[in-house]
Amino acid sequence: MPYHFADRMAYAPESFLGTLFAVSGDPDIISFAGGLPSSELIDTKGITEATRVVLEEDGSEALQYSTTDGYLPLREYIAKRYRQRYGLSATADEIRIVNGSQQNLDLLAKIFLNPGDGVGLEAPGYLGSIEAFSLYQPTFCPVPLTETGPDPNFLEKTMREKTCRFFYGIPNFQNPSGTSYSDEARRHAGLLARETGTIFYEDDAFGELAFDGRARIPVKKYAREYGIISGSFSKIVAPGLRCGWIYAPSEIIAQFDIAKQSADLHSNFLSQKILHRYLTTTDLDQHVRRVASVYERNCRLMGDLIDDIFGGDLIRTHPEGGMFIWATLPKGIDARDLFEAGVKEQVAIMPGMPFYVEDGGHDAIRLNFSNACEDEISEGMIRLKTAFDRCR
Amino acid sequence: MPYHFADRMAYAPESFLGTLFAVSGDPDIISFAGGLPSSELIDTKGITEATRVVLEEDGSEALQYSTTDGYLPLREYIAKRYRQRYGLSATADEIRIVNGSQQNLDLLAKIFLNPGDGVGLEAPGYLGSIEAFSLYQPTFCPVPLTETGPDPNFLEKTMREKTCRFFYGIPNFQNPSGTSYSDEARRHAGLLARETGTIFYEDDAFGELAFDGRARIPVKKYAREYGIISGSFSKIVAPGLRCGWIYAPSEIIAQFDIAKQSADLHSNFLSQKILHRYLTTTDLDQHVRRVASVYERNCRLMGDLIDDIFGGDLIRTHPEGGMFIWATLPKGIDARDLFEAGVKEQVAIMPGMPFYVEDGGHDAIRLNFSNACEDEISEGMIRLKTAFDRCR
Repeated sequence: MPYHFADRMAYAPESFLGTLFAVSGDPDIISFAGGLPSSELIDTKGITEATRVVLEEDGSEALQYSTTDGYLPLREYIAKRYRQRYGLSATADEIRIVNGSQQNLDLLAKIFLNPGDGVGLEAPGYLGSIEAFSLYQPTFCPVPLTETGPDPNFLEKTMREKTCRFFYGIPNFQNPSGTSYSDEARRHAGLLARETGTIFYEDDAFGELAFDGRARIPVKKYAREYGIISGSFSKIVAPGLRCGWIYAPSEIIAQFDIAKQSADLHSNFLSQKILHRYLTTTDLDQHVRRVASVYERNCRLMGDLIDDIFGGDLIRTHPEGGMFIWATLPKGIDARDLFEAGVKEQVAIMPGMPFYVEDGGHDAIRLNFSNACEDEISEGMIRLKTAFDRCR
Repeated sequence: MPYHFADRMAYAPESFLGTLFAVSGDPDIISFAGGLPSSELIDTKGITEATRVVLEEDGSEALQYSTTDGYLPLREYIAKRYRQRYGLSATADEIRIVNGSQQNLDLLAKIFLNPGDGVGLEAPGYLGSIEAFSLYQPTFCPVPLTETGPDPNFLEKTMREKTCRFFYGIPNFQNPSGTSYSDEARRHAGLLARETGTIFYEDDAFGELAFDGRARIPVKKYAREYGIISGSFSKIVAPGLRCGWIYAPSEIIAQFDIAKQSADLHSNFLSQKILHRYLTTTDLDQHVRRVASVYERNCRLMGDLIDDIFGGDLIRTHPEGGMFIWATLPKGIDARDLFEAGVKEQVAIMPGMPFYVEDGGHDAIRLNFSNACEDEISEGMIRLKTAFDRCR
């Protein structure tokens, strides 16, 4: 049929997902390609009990329509955590509940971007952000990422000389690189945002997964009313509940509400009630420490194996939290070739290309360490070495 | 702060919701203004049991990330119902799960509309569709609605002479009017869609709520590959689960998937699993019959009371299903004045204006009969008459 689609659809980046899905369905393949938290570390028992109580105590309310802004007690819980853990003066009025933090990417692009508007982002950057922003036809202004944050001179030049509606970054344990901003990089980015009047959109999906448990200073602390933080329960409680939030100044929230209401009226109310019940009857800090300690062991093991097995052929990042390691390949080895050789050896990695808005990433791979056990990591790395040698 | 928002935000229609919320919070006010299904008719017990089994049997899977397309067994259930109830040759490949059918409005507008593109719709039309479409800056082409469907000559003129990317309509028990397309109107709309190559986007949130239980012929039956049906579990199971679906040709689904993935990765997986378990262990037809029979009694009572109490001053529609009656006011009475007089008498109605993309609806009101008991309907109508007399 000759359907006519909107021009924006032509801006959707080529998807790598079809290939990945084909791989992820095969149980014989050890996959480091995805971005799933560990299923075993989801507190199914605790969530089941919270669900039971919610449905028993006010089931018909939890199953009815609710308001666009989100469940107030849940928003109050989130605001309190910002006040206590980060010393930010958050209130529930500045918090809104979304269907996982991916929805923030869509809704913030929607309220801020005209076609052609500038959007700053890290290179490499989060694949899902590139997909979401692309449909709003922006002009991407990528800033190279170092092990301590966006290249400071490049960032300064971009923020001062280009008119970006916002800069999107992941200061804590970034996806895909695993790197974090230094304290100085946070201060620099935040002050630049305020000085240039550029929104700093800080995606903090991984901040709670610090191996040392230390709360890093949010860029918003410096950016103030130019700072937006996106948060998620996917990595600390459960992704299937599709529950994240936005923390933004009231003027932005007012526009966000319009976009959210027209997008889907409100987020799943049952999930919000379950989460609130769970969070207020569980020791979240203890749960998160347990998750982070498993991820830390996995990360160390994977990192050490890369160093041992590849003996300097792979240059890798040294994450202090999160779920990903980024590795740079030696000259002459292409990431897509390594992906394909890997599949033949029954190990899957994510090539670097989809994390760039311009050509890039052919010499890099992303490795996920949260969704494999130690044996799988050990065996997978040996398989990856075999694949690597075949690409030489 | 001098934030710069996207141009599209200026196209958001003025919201009446602030006023409505202020009213809905007051327990002394009898409200016919909203659009909620009856909380008492939600099968909390059945859903609770389904939830228990899902979490017990595969809790960690239900709480993990899932795929953008939606839970396959649920999509198969939906496709089968289309085949059996409507004789449409639906397959699971043509079905996608969304966060309530409001999300279809956003995503279909996103994949089809460039700024300025034509969108046909009924006048009066569903408020939420006007809000969602407006952010894509279309040119609205409203077609006056009669008691048997869109004015056929006007519809034909619009479909033939204007270039609409799609026509959005609610053939069954429309929101806000409560009217339905005649069999002839369905055929006419469907054939016109095919002939002119215009998508007919059929929102069927209420089709199952026919008082006589009869399945009406979908417009898609005639429009074929130009037909899209939007469905929802909100009115037949529970709105808080935020679960609806789209049924569309594969080429459209491919674009829809791109938009859905970038919007929020996937719909709530726990809800999808609960729904599937519930639907396959419950007699849905029996449940729906029970809901529809309560709504039918409410509708008759409200309609009769309007005729009795207002004695011809209010001209009303005669719904054969759904949740709404539409009433036209006599000359000289303004819907907003009646709304305000109503609030003083502790009864809330919805003025007609927000259901029009052009100026209109000042002489009409929408009355919801699904979320009030018979006593409330009786008392509310007496209060409305007092308010009405004050407006004279």
